[in-house]
Amino acid sequence: MNTIGQNITLTLFGESHGEAIGAVLDGMTAGIAVDEAFIAEQLSKRRPQGATDTARQEQDHFKIVSGVFNGYTTGAPICIIIPNENTRSGDYAKTYGLARPSHADYTAHVKYSGFEDYRGGGHFSGRITAAIVAAGAIAIKALEGKGVRIGTHILSCGGVRDVDFCTNAESIEHGIEVLNSKTFPVVNHIEEDITNAIIGVKNNLDSIGGIVQTAITGLEAGIGEPWFDSLEGVIAKAVFAIGGVKGIEFGKGFDLANMTGATANDPFCIENGAVRTRTNNNGGINGGISNGMPVVFNTAVKPTPSISQSQQTINFLTGKEETLNLTGRHDPAIVRRICIVISSMVAIVLCDMLSIKNGQNYLR
Amino acid sequence: MNTIGQNITLTLFGESHGEAIGAVLDGMTAGIAVDEAFIAEQLSKRRPQGATDTARQEQDHFKIVSGVFNGYTTGAPICIIIPNENTRSGDYAKTYGLARPSHADYTAHVKYSGFEDYRGGGHFSGRITAAIVAAGAIAIKALEGKGVRIGTHILSCGGVRDVDFCTNAESIEHGIEVLNSKTFPVVNHIEEDITNAIIGVKNNLDSIGGIVQTAITGLEAGIGEPWFDSLEGVIAKAVFAIGGVKGIEFGKGFDLANMTGATANDPFCIENGAVRTRTNNNGGINGGISNGMPVVFNTAVKPTPSISQSQQTINFLTGKEETLNLTGRHDPAIVRRICIVISSMVAIVLCDMLSIKNGQNYLR
Amino acid sequence: MNTIGQNITLTLFGESHGEAIGAVLDGMTAGIAVDEAFIAEQLSKRRPQGATDTARQEQDHFKIVSGVFNGYTTGAPICIIIPNENTRSGDYAKTYGLARPSHADYTAHVKYSGFEDYRGGGHFSGRITAAIVAAGAIAIKALEGKGVRIGTHILSCGGVRDVDFCTNAESIEHGIEVLNSKTFPVVNHIEEDITNAIIGVKNNLDSIGGIVQTAITGLEAGIGEPWFDSLEGVIAKAVFAIGGVKGIEFGKGFDLANMTGATANDPFCIENGAVRTRTNNNGGINGGISNGMPVVFNTAVKPTPSISQSQQTINFLTGKEETLNLTGRHDPAIVRRICIVISSMVAIVLCDMLSIKNGQNYLR
Amino acid sequence: MNTIGQNITLTLFGESHGEAIGAVLDGMTAGIAVDEAFIAEQLSKRRPQGATDTARQEQDHFKIVSGVFNGYTTGAPICIIIPNENTRSGDYAKTYGLARPSHADYTAHVKYSGFEDYRGGGHFSGRITAAIVAAGAIAIKALEGKGVRIGTHILSCGGVRDVDFCTNAESIEHGIEVLNSKTFPVVNHIEEDITNAIIGVKNNLDSIGGIVQTAITGLEAGIGEPWFDSLEGVIAKAVFAIGGVKGIEFGKGFDLANMTGATANDPFCIENGAVRTRTNNNGGINGGISNGMPVVFNTAVKPTPSISQSQQTINFLTGKEETLNLTGRHDPAIVRRICIVISSMVAIVLCDMLSIKNGQNYLR
Repeated sequence: MNTIGQNITLTLFGESHGEAIGAVLDGMTAGIAVDEAFIAEQLSKRRPQGATDTARQEQDHFKIVSGVFNGYTTGAPICIIIPNENTRSGDYAKTYGLARPSHADYTAHVKYSGFEDYRGGGHFSGRITAAIVAAGAIAIKALEGKGVRIGTHILSCGGVRDVDFCTNAESIEHGIEVLNSKTFPVVNHIEEDITNAIIGVKNNLDSIGGIVQTAITGLEAGIGEPWFDSLEGVIAKAVFAIGGVKGIEFGKGFDLANMTGATANDPFCIENGAVRTRTNNNGGINGGISNGMPVVFNTAVKPTPSISQSQQTINFLTGKEETLNLTGRHDPAIVRRICIVISSMVAIVLCDMLSIKNGQNYLR
Repeated sequence: MNTIGQNITLTLFGESHGEAIGAVLDGMTAGIAVDEAFIAEQLSKRRPQGATDTARQEQDHFKIVSGVFNGYTTGAPICIIIPNENTRSGDYAKTYGLARPSHADYTAHVKYSGFEDYRGGGHFSGRITAAIVAAGAIAIKALEGKGVRIGTHILSCGGVRDVDFCTNAESIEHGIEVLNSKTFPVVNHIEEDITNAIIGVKNNLDSIGGIVQTAITGLEAGIGEPWFDSLEGVIAKAVFAIGGVKGIEFGKGFDLANMTGATANDPFCIENGAVRTRTNNNGGINGGISNGMPVVFNTAVKPTPSISQSQQTINFLTGKEETLNLTGRHDPAIVRRICIVISSMVAIVLCDMLSIKNGQNYLR
Repeated sequence: MNTIGQNITLTLFGESHGEAIGAVLDGMTAGIAVDEAFIAEQLSKRRPQGATDTARQEQDHFKIVSGVFNGYTTGAPICIIIPNENTRSGDYAKTYGLARPSHADYTAHVKYSGFEDYRGGGHFSGRITAAIVAAGAIAIKALEGKGVRIGTHILSCGGVRDVDFCTNAESIEHGIEVLNSKTFPVVNHIEEDITNAIIGVKNNLDSIGGIVQTAITGLEAGIGEPWFDSLEGVIAKAVFAIGGVKGIEFGKGFDLANMTGATANDPFCIENGAVRTRTNNNGGINGGISNGMPVVFNTAVKPTPSISQSQQTINFLTGKEETLNLTGRHDPAIVRRICIVISSMVAIVLCDMLSIKNGQNYLR
Repeated sequence: MNTIGQNITLTLFGESHGEAIGAVLDGMTAGIAVDEAFIAEQLSKRRPQGATDTARQEQDHFKIVSGVFNGYTTGAPICIIIPNENTRSGDYAKTYGLARPSHADYTAHVKYSGFEDYRGGGHFSGRITAAIVAAGAIAIKALEGKGVRIGTHILSCGGVRDVDFCTNAESIEHGIEVLNSKTFPVVNHIEEDITNAIIGVKNNLDSIGGIVQTAITGLEAGIGEPWFDSLEGVIAKAVFAIGGVKGIEFGKGFDLANMTGATANDPFCIENGAVRTRTNNNGGINGGISNGMPVVFNTAVKPTPSISQSQQTINFLTGKEETLNLTGRHDPAIVRRICIVISSMVAIVLCDMLSIKNGQNYLR
């Protein structure tokens, strides 16, 4: 339920307005340097900032409770705790029962028979993704030690588009470097355009979605399995865990549906003695297994369901229809903040898959 | 690797040109009637037919080796064996080393260090999906007993489009009924148009992809988990197991990326005393959990990589670039045949999720 | 690695001298009352006390960080944190390298390549069992709501024996009640005899083992699986997780090896309309599945490896043989403290198995 | 349920009187030579023979249906089928309802709600262990390639005892060699004594149990996990899967309960530059992890429940008490036949654990 992975696992816990959120990262190789400053830096990329994000401010003061000793992973489970601050729980009890459309209020109520912690989305809150980012930072560093790099950027939002790593494979290495140096995850200079687009919908009391794109370079060929643990399937399951995700496609994805084999197939070639493909329409994966090319996938992010306009809904306690007028602090778009979450999540499952293939000491 | 599921599991085995393929379906509730004629009928929907499919003909004479007694499941693992017939293995040894572009030849070679069974795609062959369909037939019947129905149809191929269940929720029940009565899975009368489109590319020595759409009705609210076992994630992992799948989206999926919250959100309402949503842009899932509306998702299917045109590739035994001229029997498109595979695969994971929630005897 | 269970899982983390230890209990049904006083009471049964235990004193001030709201489980993962107090880490660095015989020092060093947290046994420390007891308290209460009761007592230690639940089935219900009311887990009035035996070996700078026995009453028939998830196998795996355990036997266990079928078989009978067996040599389990009789098993607990006598050992940093003289605080016997740990651990896996059979809401 | 393992898994299927039994071994490294003659030889060790076993004779004509190509494992799942022959199903329908004491008839009936295949024990039959032996033969060969050897012998039966590997570590290597060359698994020349003891109880219309002992040599230090995947726990779960097993102990096991630390602890020493322990009371495992010494454990096997004497029981269809007079072919003891099953089962989980630590190609 709240655990993912086979040899390296991540377990999440916490609620938006509870005492703390956190994660347990287990199975991670002993002897990986843990850089708390890097974790803090990664968390800062997820943190709300500027006019495009929620006004809820948290410092994400994380604490590594176990599994790290003298600056290195010990091989024991790593528990990271992030206390909740700046919670305003009082707001929630009086609106309980009013199901915010496209939120989990109603489904949580059904699933947990009325015992759900409803404050601020409870366990469904995007707040928990901070724990993914903190744990993912350790995984990202471990992967870097093996030459694997990950970057996620906003591919499109509000009509503004960034460079496409799927068709511009040569730009990926540079792009990831650019992304790692910025808090607004775009390669081209389109921060302002996207910001303006988001502020536009926000001023309209509305929200907006977008497409984000992830690229992984340096991943060896041979990772993944033919059927149920295909690289696509494992990544997809991990990415769909993140709230707001409604679609994923690898390589050219849905565009492949309109192509023919002659143009969609990626011809193999030899470059500098290495096996490559001339195009990368399959996103670096053949038969569920990495082929040594960059792995590229796009994630569809829906508009934040919390909007300030009036909405029709029901009260599931009374069974009546009602009008909902949301107040409070909300993100008009999560495309910026979700990028680091996806990279972090994917880093963890890649560590797992590399360990399965190469053994539990490989990542050191 | 070749096993999926938690309380109800499916394990696959077999190769295209080995002795047999098959599946073990474990954890299925005891006391479910097993209708061998229905299994045969489901298999016939996957079987090649007409001008649009491969000329390889197999009768799929399955045998239930265990787990069924006096016509009912016993609760013990159900092993289904489908012997391979009509194999022409001689063709393959001489072309071994030539990596078919966008196929698994190269990645299998890397992963299995040269020990892979390369005949006809070996364990990667679409042939193994027959075992999914056979096992899925038992799951589909079990679900029907609980009022859950599944249908998958070709939403678009070669420029031809079928009705969209995401925007026409009222047409779903009827649509599924139509689909179950036909071997060409479309609701509207577009069989001929799609067939012609496929024959067109085939005559061009090419292949074509498409988008298929799946709808699930009657699924109770409350199925799925907030994070890693979200209904989207579990379905996505299962669907990406099927060869040729490169994308999946729930509800309006990638279109949501261009929408705003005001139009994307699905307002809740009460209809005949039941909680419903007025639109179904989220495909029946909120916060990873079913909300009682039809679950709708689209799957992107790439063009079959086997085409009869010359292709540039490498020989991974020699490390040289070569030209590949494929002969043999291939599907110019798999959109028709994949529909029943997706429905079958999804039926199995839904049985699992319903059993997790309601107990191991629920499905009887 | 540090997670056990299928539908209900327990994840452990923490080290003896780290910041905190804890557990994540996931999948537990929503709506179970959480009684913090009961958790504290259970923890007090594990806490050192009197002359027979280590002098290390901790108050086990646990904090439930998530998954409980308004006094009830919410269905989200329950994270319980127990901060470490009263640690004396300074002692350990100077003896690092000296492998305490029959402890995990050497194996941890090999497994974690020298990155292990070696202070006080690190992640191997019995201290982590406090987290099992805290999480288990919630499970024990949930089981009580379903009529399932668990008790573990010292069956034998230092030549002193308690009543045997395997041969005195009629005494079990009363025995469990007695055990729950005491901190020294024996049914008969043998506390003093056992204490004296332990103090005797302690004065001899030595330690001692024992056999503890667990009984489970009220467990419905039909729990367990024929092969790999046999009730014996699932319980055994859980119990072997606890340090110091070197054997487990169900019913008459090893004594069955010397019996014949005519005396070992448990004849079925009808008592008050219910199916029972006249004897319970099989410990309530036939074919891996509970038969409705009390489940009874014995656990072999080895003498605490930490003793104050000089011992021959090696220094794994130098590769030389050395003499080890342990100082510090140690338990001369853990048979008393392990009883509540075993009951707690077993309660969690029973909750899991009952949920698998009866659904995720069954335990409410 | 019927699948065990993490990176290498075994799935069982089949019933005593169904069409066939079999197993799927998945995740096994590609490139391991598969010796069908060796598999047949291993199966012959499990087969009934002589006066001490059941008169049911089967040739165990196994067929490897998938996963092996040109004599080597391919990395794909290996399905092995063993057809059932010589079944006499007619016997069973008329006695259905009469619960054989200490058999699974009643518990299967409860668990599967009357849909169980009751013929000859159905899926609970010891017959299925032939599939474990066949799959285990591949694992045993893979382990031998890494210097790991396994042997299981009858330690005691009917008052006759064999050499104890726990106290005679120097005899293990020779002992395993002896065991591998014989079909009656004892090291000393006690075949006749044990045979006579078994024939004695058989003539008395009774059955008998025993203790079997397993030794593993050449296993590297560092295998296992501190808590839930302790080497003891993983082996115990696998061994309890086998019918008739009611206890397991590692090293001196239950005898440790009566020892003190000074005699129970195994002092470390250096021998020929390698870390060893002078005694092996802990059976080669410290803190759940292998320490490089031979792993030794004993398994308690209960008397075969099928005996020819009259027994008191119930008819669970009528709810009445009845007298049971069993006819048919039964083993008066399974201690001989179970030895190869335990070795095979343990070989599979060891392959899994070695792969987890050293990667999926390690075993080649």
